[in-house]
Amino acid sequence: MAAIAFWVSLVSVSLNAGFVAIGAAVIARRGGWAYLRGRFGSREQAIYQSPYYNHRHSQFDRLPMSPSDIMFLGDSITDEGEWSDWFPAATIRNRGISGDTIGGVLRRLPNLLKGAPKAVFLMIGINDLINVRRSPEQVLACYEQILSLVKQQTPQTQVYVQSVLPIAAPFPSALNQTILQLNQGIAALATSFGYRYLDLHGAFVVNGQLDPACTTDGLHLNGEGYARWASHLRLLIDPTLSLAETFLAKTSGDD
Amino acid sequence: MAAIAFWVSLVSVSLNAGFVAIGAAVIARRGGWAYLRGRFGSREQAIYQSPYYNHRHSQFDRLPMSPSDIMFLGDSITDEGEWSDWFPAATIRNRGISGDTIGGVLRRLPNLLKGAPKAVFLMIGINDLINVRRSPEQVLACYEQILSLVKQQTPQTQVYVQSVLPIAAPFPSALNQTILQLNQGIAALATSFGYRYLDLHGAFVVNGQLDPACTTDGLHLNGEGYARWASHLRLLIDPTLSLAETFLAKTSGDD
Repeated sequence: MAAIAFWVSLVSVSLNAGFVAIGAAVIARRGGWAYLRGRFGSREQAIYQSPYYNHRHSQFDRLPMSPSDIMFLGDSITDEGEWSDWFPAATIRNRGISGDTIGGVLRRLPNLLKGAPKAVFLMIGINDLINVRRSPEQVLACYEQILSLVKQQTPQTQVYVQSVLPIAAPFPSALNQTILQLNQGIAALATSFGYRYLDLHGAFVVNGQLDPACTTDGLHLNGEGYARWASHLRLLIDPTLSLAETFLAKTSGDD
Repeated sequence: MAAIAFWVSLVSVSLNAGFVAIGAAVIARRGGWAYLRGRFGSREQAIYQSPYYNHRHSQFDRLPMSPSDIMFLGDSITDEGEWSDWFPAATIRNRGISGDTIGGVLRRLPNLLKGAPKAVFLMIGINDLINVRRSPEQVLACYEQILSLVKQQTPQTQVYVQSVLPIAAPFPSALNQTILQLNQGIAALATSFGYRYLDLHGAFVVNGQLDPACTTDGLHLNGEGYARWASHLRLLIDPTLSLAETFLAKTSGDD
C-alpha cells in the first residue's frame, strides 16, 4: 500500500509541477505581469492601454478634421465600417476604436471636437454592458456628459445619437432586455439635448435578437449589416442623393 | 510514512483534477473543439474562418470599386490606416484585413479586381512569416501568382508593390534578416512584371528593427508610422498635390 501511495504521489506531484509550468509559460508568453494586471485589473484600463487603442488614437491626432466633415464615433461596430465607401459624396471621418467604451469616448472627445465637425454619428455602449459591466444608469450618466460636452465645445455640431444594436448567441440573450432599457434612456437624453435619436435597433432586431442575416458572431456586422445601416443614414448624409431624390420625386410628379 | 504518502496523494490528485477542470473550462469558454481546431489545426484556415475576416470580406462584396479608384490591399497594417483621410483628393478603397496572409490576398484578389481599379498598393507577407511560417520562397511563389493574376485580369491596373516593414521586440529580431531576404525577392519580382517596387522598409528601419517611434507593439503602426508611410506615397497618389508641387517648383524656378 505504502509503495502504491508513494508512486501515486510521485506521478501526481510531477503532473502538478507540469501544470504550473505550463500556466507560467502561457502567462509569460502573453506578457507576464502586464497581462495579469490587464486580465484581472480594470478591464477598461486594459482597453485604453492596448497597442491598438494607442495606435488608433495617435493616428487620429495626426489626421485633419474640418467643419464640413462628418465623424463616425464609437467602438468596433463603427471602426469596422468602410464609411467613406458607403457615402462617397461626403467626407466621413471614421473615429471608431474596437473595444471602446463610453468612458473611452468621453476621454477622447475633447480632442476629436477640435475640428468642429458638422455632424457626429455616435454608437457606443455595448462594451460597457458586456465587458466593463456598467449598469444602464452608469452608461447614461456618461452619455449625458458626452452630449453636454458637444453642446458646450461645438454647439454647431449636429449629433445623431444611434441606438445600441441587439446582440445574439453566444452572447447572453438576457442582455437584450438591458439594451432595450438603455436605448429608452438614450432616446430620452438625446431629445432633451435637442439632438436626433436614430432607432437602428428596430432595423436589426429579429425575435428580440440581432438578425442572423447581419452577423456571424452575434455582435459585429457583415456586409448586409453595413448596407442596412447605411441605407438608414443615406438621406441624412449624402447631399447629392438627397438632391437627386428630390429632383426625381419632382420629375415623376410632373408626369 | 504511509499516512503522509496517502495525504500527499490525496491533496496532489485533487490539485490535478482542479488543474484539468480549469483547463477544460478555459477551452470551453473559448469555443471548445472549434477553438482547439483553430489553435492547433491550420493557422491560415483559422484566419479565413474568423468572424472578422468574413465580415470584412462580405462588406467588400457590397461596396463599389471603379477604374478611377485606388485600392490599398494587405493585412492589419493596411487595414488600420485611415487612407481616405490621408489622401483626401483621391478615392481610396481600404481592402486590408487584419491577420491576412499572401494566401488570403490571392484568394480574394479575383473578386477585388472586378472593378478594375486604377492602382493597387500592396503590402503583405509579415503574417506568413510570423504566423503561418511560410519560407520566403513560398511567399514569393504566391507574389508571382498575384502579380500575374493582375497582369492578366486587369492589365491597365498599376501595381505598387510595397516592401514588408521591419519588426521589433517582442517579435524575434532574427526575423528581420528573413524580411530583408523576402524584400529582395519582392523587388526583383515587381521589376520583372514591370510594376514599381516601393522600398518603405528603408524609411522605417532603425538599427535593423522597426523604428520605435512608429510602433508600440513592434509590428503595427501609430500615427507617426502612418504619417511617414503617407508622405512616401503622396506624390504617387494625390493628383492635386502633384500639380501644386510642380507649379511651385516652376514658380520658384522663375525667380
